[in-house]
Amino acid sequence: MLYLVGLGLADETDITVKGLEIVKNAERVYLEAYTSILLVDTSKLEELYGRPVIVADREMVETSSDEILHNADKVDVAFLVVGDPFGTLVLVNSATTHTDLVLRARELGIEMRNIPNASIMSAIGCTGLQLYSFGQTVSMVFFTDTWKPSSYYDRIKQNAEHGLHTLVLLDIKVKEQSLENMARGRKIYEPPRYMTVAQCAAQMLETEAERQEGICGPESLAIGAARVGAVDQQLAVGTLEELSKIDMGKPLHSLVLLGKKTHELERDYVRRFAVNTATFDDIWKRHYEAKP
Amino acid sequence: MLYLVGLGLADETDITVKGLEIVKNAERVYLEAYTSILLVDTSKLEELYGRPVIVADREMVETSSDEILHNADKVDVAFLVVGDPFGTLVLVNSATTHTDLVLRARELGIEMRNIPNASIMSAIGCTGLQLYSFGQTVSMVFFTDTWKPSSYYDRIKQNAEHGLHTLVLLDIKVKEQSLENMARGRKIYEPPRYMTVAQCAAQMLETEAERQEGICGPESLAIGAARVGAVDQQLAVGTLEELSKIDMGKPLHSLVLLGKKTHELERDYVRRFAVNTATFDDIWKRHYEAKP
Repeated sequence: MLYLVGLGLADETDITVKGLEIVKNAERVYLEAYTSILLVDTSKLEELYGRPVIVADREMVETSSDEILHNADKVDVAFLVVGDPFGTLVLVNSATTHTDLVLRARELGIEMRNIPNASIMSAIGCTGLQLYSFGQTVSMVFFTDTWKPSSYYDRIKQNAEHGLHTLVLLDIKVKEQSLENMARGRKIYEPPRYMTVAQCAAQMLETEAERQEGICGPESLAIGAARVGAVDQQLAVGTLEELSKIDMGKPLHSLVLLGKKTHELERDYVRRFAVNTATFDDIWKRHYEAKP
Repeated sequence: MLYLVGLGLADETDITVKGLEIVKNAERVYLEAYTSILLVDTSKLEELYGRPVIVADREMVETSSDEILHNADKVDVAFLVVGDPFGTLVLVNSATTHTDLVLRARELGIEMRNIPNASIMSAIGCTGLQLYSFGQTVSMVFFTDTWKPSSYYDRIKQNAEHGLHTLVLLDIKVKEQSLENMARGRKIYEPPRYMTVAQCAAQMLETEAERQEGICGPESLAIGAARVGAVDQQLAVGTLEELSKIDMGKPLHSLVLLGKKTHELERDYVRRFAVNTATFDDIWKRHYEAKP
């Protein structure tokens, strides 16, 4: 049996009691370590599990799936995924890799079971925004001097047309090679990079300046969310202008762009996280207040 | 401290290791028991926790929130919620109740912490559909002879315009009074009712027959999901016509109406759950296949 076990969002104790039992009894345990990260080291996981964990990077999952799946028709193999096993499929650049492993397991006739856990897709409800007022989720990649993809803007626009909030998932770069090292086949990796709320807000303002359709401008309200589910979880509400200058500390960060179809309970809830309450009240009144 | 602890979706062992620790050490433990249900009895929870659990029905949460919050500025109180503490806010008829408790705690200056867990909003990724291709979530209430609300139809239509999937959350009725008993003030409750995939599909066809805008007709493809995250989790893909006749067993059920912006990996993944593979292939080819 191949178990896809969700680890939740923050630390080693976010695994479920059911998941922990499976991990303790499995023949081999892999940790998917390239689409998201926990906020603690792998050694913390090994300590709780009382056993070694094999870290599976992108290369390993892409090229050695048969090794991961070896014998899994007879013994139990646990494949650990940060967040929810299927929830993380949405992250940047990882859309297919993980599905490939699952499809490969199917081809080999290996039984599978998923152990769900918290994902940012639902945990973002901790902002106090109603989850049924969210439209499609988008992802934001690191812009470069020559590559500033803005297809996300079109999807945010579709959500905005119906007054819906948009969850923006932020890029992470783990074990990436520089172009030069890749070209020379050198397995030297860059330090990991995690996009911050400030970087995301700044990129959104950059796209808005270019497109000018009034979707994510300096007066658009958004919520920055850092380390959701952790003890030091932090939320900040402000304009994109304000958030583009904020320091929300360590990763992981996410951002929600507010839609205009809001409920006063949402306002009451998010207001206390305002970077600047006066600005918030003013902009809310002018642009967001529900009209009867 | 008020801890809002997510219990996950299926049974007592879906609580996280962190959540279990909090429950064991809290002064009082309440279980929110009206917006969703676990698939096991409360006694199973008490057995794992080694302590009693106070079942909090809607009436109690609405009228006795100060009792629940009593002393929570000094001692730890755990409020258990099926799914994710904030994810379940989306369920039918419960949108505000739960937020009220949280807002009341804030008024009283009580510190709060949420322990996220799996929610149907992300666990539905187990269908193999990409979560970032979902639009806004809708809920379906039980139709009566005189009340067949169709506002959900407009929201599905908005999603469909952009080719997006729609997650439909199905009504549950727990501890409801009949109109007569309510009028006479008799605390006699009806047996619990949980909407099935078949009932939901039938109601969608009913709305379509009335509105006739081609949003959820007999040839629209949908996925029925039963007991997501449980050992006997079941998925079924078919037309709404087919699903309106299916028996997917015990609760809880959910349904996803497929959008037309699909990826071939999604087709490969869901096809194995087809009620009738021939129908599925035919309809997919005619209506859903991604055009270049």
